[in-house]
Amino acid sequence: MKAIAVKPRNPNSVHLADLPKPRVTDVPNGRGVLVKVLKVGVDATDREINDGLYGNPPPGYDFLVLGHESFGIVEEVGPSVRHVKPGDYVTCTVRRPGTSIFDRIGRSDITSEETYFERGINLLHGYLTEYYVDDAEFVVRVPPALKHLGVLSEPMSVADKAIQQVYEAQKRLLVWEPKIAYVTGAGQIGLLVTLILRLRGVEVFTIARGAKPSLKAEIAEAYGATYVSTQSMSLTELAKHTGKPDLIIEATGNSAIAFEAMSVLGHNGAIVWTSITGGQRKVEVATDSINLNWVLGNKLLLGSVNANYRHFESGISDLAQGEIFYPGVTQRILTTPVNGLDNYQEMMRQLVDSKEALKVYVNVAEG
Amino acid sequence: MKAIAVKPRNPNSVHLADLPKPRVTDVPNGRGVLVKVLKVGVDATDREINDGLYGNPPPGYDFLVLGHESFGIVEEVGPSVRHVKPGDYVTCTVRRPGTSIFDRIGRSDITSEETYFERGINLLHGYLTEYYVDDAEFVVRVPPALKHLGVLSEPMSVADKAIQQVYEAQKRLLVWEPKIAYVTGAGQIGLLVTLILRLRGVEVFTIARGAKPSLKAEIAEAYGATYVSTQSMSLTELAKHTGKPDLIIEATGNSAIAFEAMSVLGHNGAIVWTSITGGQRKVEVATDSINLNWVLGNKLLLGSVNANYRHFESGISDLAQGEIFYPGVTQRILTTPVNGLDNYQEMMRQLVDSKEALKVYVNVAEG
Amino acid sequence: MKAIAVKPRNPNSVHLADLPKPRVTDVPNGRGVLVKVLKVGVDATDREINDGLYGNPPPGYDFLVLGHESFGIVEEVGPSVRHVKPGDYVTCTVRRPGTSIFDRIGRSDITSEETYFERGINLLHGYLTEYYVDDAEFVVRVPPALKHLGVLSEPMSVADKAIQQVYEAQKRLLVWEPKIAYVTGAGQIGLLVTLILRLRGVEVFTIARGAKPSLKAEIAEAYGATYVSTQSMSLTELAKHTGKPDLIIEATGNSAIAFEAMSVLGHNGAIVWTSITGGQRKVEVATDSINLNWVLGNKLLLGSVNANYRHFESGISDLAQGEIFYPGVTQRILTTPVNGLDNYQEMMRQLVDSKEALKVYVNVAEG
Amino acid sequence: MKAIAVKPRNPNSVHLADLPKPRVTDVPNGRGVLVKVLKVGVDATDREINDGLYGNPPPGYDFLVLGHESFGIVEEVGPSVRHVKPGDYVTCTVRRPGTSIFDRIGRSDITSEETYFERGINLLHGYLTEYYVDDAEFVVRVPPALKHLGVLSEPMSVADKAIQQVYEAQKRLLVWEPKIAYVTGAGQIGLLVTLILRLRGVEVFTIARGAKPSLKAEIAEAYGATYVSTQSMSLTELAKHTGKPDLIIEATGNSAIAFEAMSVLGHNGAIVWTSITGGQRKVEVATDSINLNWVLGNKLLLGSVNANYRHFESGISDLAQGEIFYPGVTQRILTTPVNGLDNYQEMMRQLVDSKEALKVYVNVAEG
Repeated sequence: MKAIAVKPRNPNSVHLADLPKPRVTDVPNGRGVLVKVLKVGVDATDREINDGLYGNPPPGYDFLVLGHESFGIVEEVGPSVRHVKPGDYVTCTVRRPGTSIFDRIGRSDITSEETYFERGINLLHGYLTEYYVDDAEFVVRVPPALKHLGVLSEPMSVADKAIQQVYEAQKRLLVWEPKIAYVTGAGQIGLLVTLILRLRGVEVFTIARGAKPSLKAEIAEAYGATYVSTQSMSLTELAKHTGKPDLIIEATGNSAIAFEAMSVLGHNGAIVWTSITGGQRKVEVATDSINLNWVLGNKLLLGSVNANYRHFESGISDLAQGEIFYPGVTQRILTTPVNGLDNYQEMMRQLVDSKEALKVYVNVAEG
Repeated sequence: MKAIAVKPRNPNSVHLADLPKPRVTDVPNGRGVLVKVLKVGVDATDREINDGLYGNPPPGYDFLVLGHESFGIVEEVGPSVRHVKPGDYVTCTVRRPGTSIFDRIGRSDITSEETYFERGINLLHGYLTEYYVDDAEFVVRVPPALKHLGVLSEPMSVADKAIQQVYEAQKRLLVWEPKIAYVTGAGQIGLLVTLILRLRGVEVFTIARGAKPSLKAEIAEAYGATYVSTQSMSLTELAKHTGKPDLIIEATGNSAIAFEAMSVLGHNGAIVWTSITGGQRKVEVATDSINLNWVLGNKLLLGSVNANYRHFESGISDLAQGEIFYPGVTQRILTTPVNGLDNYQEMMRQLVDSKEALKVYVNVAEG
Repeated sequence: MKAIAVKPRNPNSVHLADLPKPRVTDVPNGRGVLVKVLKVGVDATDREINDGLYGNPPPGYDFLVLGHESFGIVEEVGPSVRHVKPGDYVTCTVRRPGTSIFDRIGRSDITSEETYFERGINLLHGYLTEYYVDDAEFVVRVPPALKHLGVLSEPMSVADKAIQQVYEAQKRLLVWEPKIAYVTGAGQIGLLVTLILRLRGVEVFTIARGAKPSLKAEIAEAYGATYVSTQSMSLTELAKHTGKPDLIIEATGNSAIAFEAMSVLGHNGAIVWTSITGGQRKVEVATDSINLNWVLGNKLLLGSVNANYRHFESGISDLAQGEIFYPGVTQRILTTPVNGLDNYQEMMRQLVDSKEALKVYVNVAEG
Repeated sequence: MKAIAVKPRNPNSVHLADLPKPRVTDVPNGRGVLVKVLKVGVDATDREINDGLYGNPPPGYDFLVLGHESFGIVEEVGPSVRHVKPGDYVTCTVRRPGTSIFDRIGRSDITSEETYFERGINLLHGYLTEYYVDDAEFVVRVPPALKHLGVLSEPMSVADKAIQQVYEAQKRLLVWEPKIAYVTGAGQIGLLVTLILRLRGVEVFTIARGAKPSLKAEIAEAYGATYVSTQSMSLTELAKHTGKPDLIIEATGNSAIAFEAMSVLGHNGAIVWTSITGGQRKVEVATDSINLNWVLGNKLLLGSVNANYRHFESGISDLAQGEIFYPGVTQRILTTPVNGLDNYQEMMRQLVDSKEALKVYVNVAEG
């Protein structure tokens, strides 16, 4: 069967590979789930792997199948599998457990090991192919009513984990409830975070470079947030206007913004960094002032990455709520379909070049 | 009665003031506690107030009595007071509640208000005098067996709060248990944090500039920690040697070190900043790299300041444990007594000039 | 305007009362919300108040307007109100805060005071009337897509609080995740709890007296639960079949069942009692055996009642998820509409006599 | 070497057995710790095993060495052992891990498995012998200053776990702080719980059958608690006097008292059952009333048993605090020493017959 693959560490090596179709028995103890792939989203990680920046093939291969944002339909399950059955729509987690105590409790997303095993990223083939098999432990059901949003399950899981982590960490304050949040960045993560925070009753300011009108601004505002272009107002000016925020979610990956955000946070507030770039930039930071404000205001900064089974579940739950509270909005993120695995060059071109694309994804099959 | 006071915002205005002796009835509803002051510690905050950097007098006064680290003996209590009685040794919290939700649950240490009411610091007279009266709500009992350490109650409460906050925040990771901790700074807070972490079974590296032998190094090692001089090894080199730490407590107030520490923290690790300087320094920071490592490692940074009733209690409990697990060590922090309120110039001189002083404190009265 | 009221402590005193229409300015500081009532649900509490068992009129009245399960549409808001606006569908919480620390943090549902102020139950008029005004703090928005389920907001809030409390309490076990839950009782609370647990991925056995087929059984099974009639299998037999449950939610109010359930719970398991009767029954209990199993198995029992703003919000969120995961199921609980306040006798008759009614509610107005 | 053993399931089979001296290499990977036994406490569990009620020998043996409350001195450690060294005083945990998720995170005390592996109780030899070897993971250091109390480490660990569990569970209430606690039972667990709660600042009423004066009453009152004899006042009468308690710790093992205590608990309160009897008693319980009060008051009941490494550590910390806050009190619990393993009959006689014994323990060796 066909698969979109790269030769890791070889820039621009994206190509069509051939793999044997997997069997449900490839997973022992009757726990296999065979999934027919329907849609796969791609993001900056796929682009950077194709740029040769990181990623490794599975043992015994010289290529790595891309794709970690999957949506498909179950074709067959092993005899021990109970929570999904043929015909169910599903998504699948990305990272596989190592051996740390966190891995042993089903939380490989916070593994303390240095080597990650991640489908489509490192040491395991991804989902940009026709079929895959995995252990039922990693396969998450998507209700039919969310079929049109299923390909957003993985980015939504990452957004949900970030928000859950900060609410958990802020329980240190016993009665903390954020009133005002800033979301820096209005890409897919920024917009999905905007949705999650709106569902939790928070007043949200979604902040990005581009001026209105724009699709990003429209989506943010359809979620009931206020869109702010940094061309018209800096973070500092905005904070004068709104009062200092209780929560900031950084989703630009621009480290200068990540640190600038530290300067406008309110007392007892929290920042979550969710995005990165692979760069080596150094920036002059007002270290004395940030140090002082962080201490006197009992503030908190958190990094968050990846997601596990429970975050996929809660992410899907939040997509569900989104359809009831803001019907029809989330699907507007799905800007840029590419039809068929054969169109891998077009997929990569959209990913690299398109200014308008909020989400590039491949329609692998009908279903 | 005598009191050591300053004229806030007037550099080097420390002087001897005169106040009427307070009465237990100054606090309404029978909740007053009249305390005879025995010892009062001073620290960088007192020095900076005398430098004119911050601090405000109480309404109706043009001077502010200094001193927020108190130890005394109860002389009289109002009829509603149950948890202390005349003859009890006591300490007293520093900040008084405002009106935020945190203040209303007894946690003024995390008030979300901008104005603090703090005895000896802002808008309320301090303890560097002969007697004080306060509401029983703020008066904390010290057992007689800790009489010799009572003047450390306030710094210990601050150290305890910082550690409690980070353990609470790290519950986001469900099963986090730090194995290796770095403490940067070996002043009183650094050493007390060293003690607390040792009591929790953590392997501690206490890191400061000075080379061994030194009193700081001796105390850290008597607590079972390893003392490391940055003259012999940088944080980065140390991390290569020990493995990246799970926890870093920053107690130098040097913002360059505060940010440098971010670069050596391990996965899922946490840093607490506990100290500040009043400067305006800017430093070039490897922002891309810190951003990336913070996200991929799910790391956490916390600021912590002040302490409340429960932290004073747990601080005193930790001093008690210290006496059993490391008998006779903690009192070595009490390097520099000054006898009598009249010696306020000597007190300030030791605070400003002494290189050897770990803790300057005034013996106000016998008891 | 019309209102359905009782004379508390006078059995069967239900009657039509007359009240002046409230004004948005009845609430100070511009925080009033004037709501036109659309539907109001009634339950055993209303029946027991009409039986004269409890309840008190507001000061200055000799009658109490019934109804604590409200759904309506906003007609007017004061100038300080931001989170709802005219035309929004809303529900409203039941209990109003006293002065305990729990009341002060927005959690009157766990007040430690003995006297409750509850709309339609004690000391405050209820919602079985044409209009009401309340402080915006207690008014919760319902999205238009849930308009058909809005009258279930209050019972759902109670169900949600119960589940949230037990998950919070079980964090004492760090990594507890229930696999199998029993829900005893298939009235509205039992069925809504079934939904919530199914949304959390738990395998649920909903257990009630009646044999299949029945509407209760159909709803439970449409939520993906297994319905078990106690006529065919006792709790003990069921536990032999399924393994001992990790979680039991008791929603019959039958105290014999409440205690029987304690005997079948698994290690580390938890029971929540959510229902009561006003009786004085005594039952012979295997106290030694329950005591032993509770200790050796580290088990937990929780009582839960009432709900607050955040529980209403999460209850509405769970209703939203229910529409996506199990479309069209929840509305089947709404068995028994009564048209118009004038039909108060019919309302009470259905509440008292109907064997088939899962939910009796009054259609007060169109909207 | 000598050991005190029983033939499980054979009533009154206590005898002196002979075992080879273990070697530090009996534990693989250099993790062995060889401990010379100094003192071993015995309790009702040992008595009931000798009564033939439960307990099993290790595989390959027809006898079981008794003793699970150990205190000793390290003689030798394997090369991988870091946290203890020869000459250190130590105690050792009782239960060994199975395979459940709780066992995998170091919490065998809350294993969800049905079979326990417990030294001196089930399937593993106990400590009533001259030497033992165990994995360093289970060996807990006792500071020399607590040498005289070391034999109380195990019961204190059990008391500490119970208190920690209830404080953790009550975090469901965000700001819960118990003011008044009842401790039912003034045996060793009741008294140690009294100490722990007093150290946390709670007003404690320790309640037992016997009238004052008595050693139990003296110890409770030396901890600052109020001793109440049920001969002079019932729980219900006491609650009228003190107000309903926020917390009750049941340590009689009398199931009638365990259930009676449920009737006097205050709103939002919690009960912990820590003790059991092996009986089959049934008691008539006011089930309707308890059910109603439990629900309306949002109350909680917890069972707690056993303890793990961290509880031993915190238990030892609380013994340390006890020596500072209430010097010399705790050792009064150690009423009844028996000298030498040869005196096993005397040990069992004291355990069975002595009315005055609070704690029977064997002095195995000097050290």
